[in-house]
Amino acid sequence: MLEGPSAHAAEVLCFADRIGRSSHGVANLDRIYLSRLRSGAIDAKAQPVVERSTPAATLVDGRQSMGLSTGVMAMDLAMERARSAGIGLTVVRNSSHLGCAGFFTDRAARQAMVGMAATNCGGQRIAPPPSGLAPMLGTNPISIGAPAGPHPPFVLDMSTTVVATSRIRQAARRGEEVPPGWLVGPDGSTVTDPNEFMEGRAQVAFLGGTEAAGAFKGYGLALAVDVLCGLLSGAAVGPGPLDEDGSSDKDIGHFFLAIDIASLRDPDAYATDAGSLFGNLLSSPARPGAQVRYPGEPEDQHRAESDSHGVTLERAVYDDLLAVVERHGLQAPEGVQEVAS
Amino acid sequence: MLEGPSAHAAEVLCFADRIGRSSHGVANLDRIYLSRLRSGAIDAKAQPVVERSTPAATLVDGRQSMGLSTGVMAMDLAMERARSAGIGLTVVRNSSHLGCAGFFTDRAARQAMVGMAATNCGGQRIAPPPSGLAPMLGTNPISIGAPAGPHPPFVLDMSTTVVATSRIRQAARRGEEVPPGWLVGPDGSTVTDPNEFMEGRAQVAFLGGTEAAGAFKGYGLALAVDVLCGLLSGAAVGPGPLDEDGSSDKDIGHFFLAIDIASLRDPDAYATDAGSLFGNLLSSPARPGAQVRYPGEPEDQHRAESDSHGVTLERAVYDDLLAVVERHGLQAPEGVQEVAS
Repeated sequence: MLEGPSAHAAEVLCFADRIGRSSHGVANLDRIYLSRLRSGAIDAKAQPVVERSTPAATLVDGRQSMGLSTGVMAMDLAMERARSAGIGLTVVRNSSHLGCAGFFTDRAARQAMVGMAATNCGGQRIAPPPSGLAPMLGTNPISIGAPAGPHPPFVLDMSTTVVATSRIRQAARRGEEVPPGWLVGPDGSTVTDPNEFMEGRAQVAFLGGTEAAGAFKGYGLALAVDVLCGLLSGAAVGPGPLDEDGSSDKDIGHFFLAIDIASLRDPDAYATDAGSLFGNLLSSPARPGAQVRYPGEPEDQHRAESDSHGVTLERAVYDDLLAVVERHGLQAPEGVQEVAS
Repeated sequence: MLEGPSAHAAEVLCFADRIGRSSHGVANLDRIYLSRLRSGAIDAKAQPVVERSTPAATLVDGRQSMGLSTGVMAMDLAMERARSAGIGLTVVRNSSHLGCAGFFTDRAARQAMVGMAATNCGGQRIAPPPSGLAPMLGTNPISIGAPAGPHPPFVLDMSTTVVATSRIRQAARRGEEVPPGWLVGPDGSTVTDPNEFMEGRAQVAFLGGTEAAGAFKGYGLALAVDVLCGLLSGAAVGPGPLDEDGSSDKDIGHFFLAIDIASLRDPDAYATDAGSLFGNLLSSPARPGAQVRYPGEPEDQHRAESDSHGVTLERAVYDDLLAVVERHGLQAPEGVQEVAS
């Protein structure tokens, strides 16, 4: 088992591919992380610093470090606090792209903790508020994880917009319409042609889609993430001052919370109740051909399959990885098999 | 200023009417609270008991007390812990209907804290999971509040279903259709006729509405509330064992979190950043005739108007209150004015 920031960063990235969330996996290695290391936006040698520390809460200055690894350090610190105080919080400013938020709460859940993780998008403006014409907030994901007794951990990991913008770009490439609710026009109408987004005439909607269907709630959750990750830590926020150079994914903020179950109740009683809750959901009546599932359960199954049979990568992602291998004079991977697409 | 459980319960109920959320106000006095006091489901003399206590986290057994007042005690305990430990958590089991969750986070925000509050619905089953045919979870609301510098506090208070079921009953009474996304048929289709709900052929959808538009996220948030309020405290949960007597709003669980801003950063710097964030939202470009707002801001304006000009109640609610006054031999209210409906 490797330790240290590089190993942690690799573990977070590969976790996303193992659970089937390839949008947050090694496809981002060169596109997000290596490119920012090259440009200096992420500092490979940075050592995150604890700036404030109370019995249960910590503020970390990430010093422009890799969010992937700083996140692991910060979640572990929150869990350490939780073991002594019952609950622990770490907020981080001056960090960078966190990767798959579910990694951090899954990590907590596997150590008998309930975990929460959130990250804002620094000063990036991606989605417009209800009634608004201009994007003001990022996709601001939230994750909550908890042990589920004999079942796979509960791990919710969700952006607060309906979908990530990558899903809309994908539909545009494929010439497909997007479902109603994903895109909103300047008059608040539902847009299903992804080219309207590509050409700047429609924007991604907050969870809820239309205002009648709850977009105020998705917007409110995104704002809560800017409060928890940005205002509490001093990181940049979506509705903050715009960068002069327009590059606004600097100074990203994160929020990590850990709750030690054993501080509050008998862990065996928790496990029994959790087994009943998640078991009753899994066995509850479903539509013909379908099954009721819960966040984290399909991902856990995907991970088990990945760990037995390997991870499948898109050809383009694999070619990008080979280019990285070549550029850095690394050893070419072994045991790769071509599968039909 | 009155103190004690009864005064706190009255304050929480009236808060809802003052901010314009009459669905959680005195309309529920007799329907929910007095009726449960009469039946013994809520015990007026119960004294909530601290069962576990760590430097930052507390478990409270509500002893079937009034959730409205036990919630105030629990949030105040979380804030007390936060003042010494940086962050404080109180989970409550064996409680009853909490009322307006936003009251508790607004209370935290006005004491320079970031607050979170959530309540489950005990064992009540209201909405079906995605792909599921049977309701399994409650409407499980979440609230997050934070100071906003010179602006009204940010207070998000949302059910994790698209809407509360009262909104659907209201549409049925008025003979109106409901917007797409509120109701889901057994095959997952969108239903707009509220009579389908009244007659049991459609159910209220989780936030996101359809599965393509993110209902898995609303469902995941509702589940997270059952984890935080139910599994952590030992209270009943939606997918738990069904009560033999079918009365399943007993043993409700709550979750209250307080984060002391001054433990993490200079409160003046927080206020400056918060003023910029919320100010930039309020002044951001909007559709003709509209304004960008944020959760808590319209409610604060409504409260200021209520406190200056009084609270307007529906005639039926006022008549119910008069009946309570008469039944208990209380003094009839003064200064009531009839306004056009």
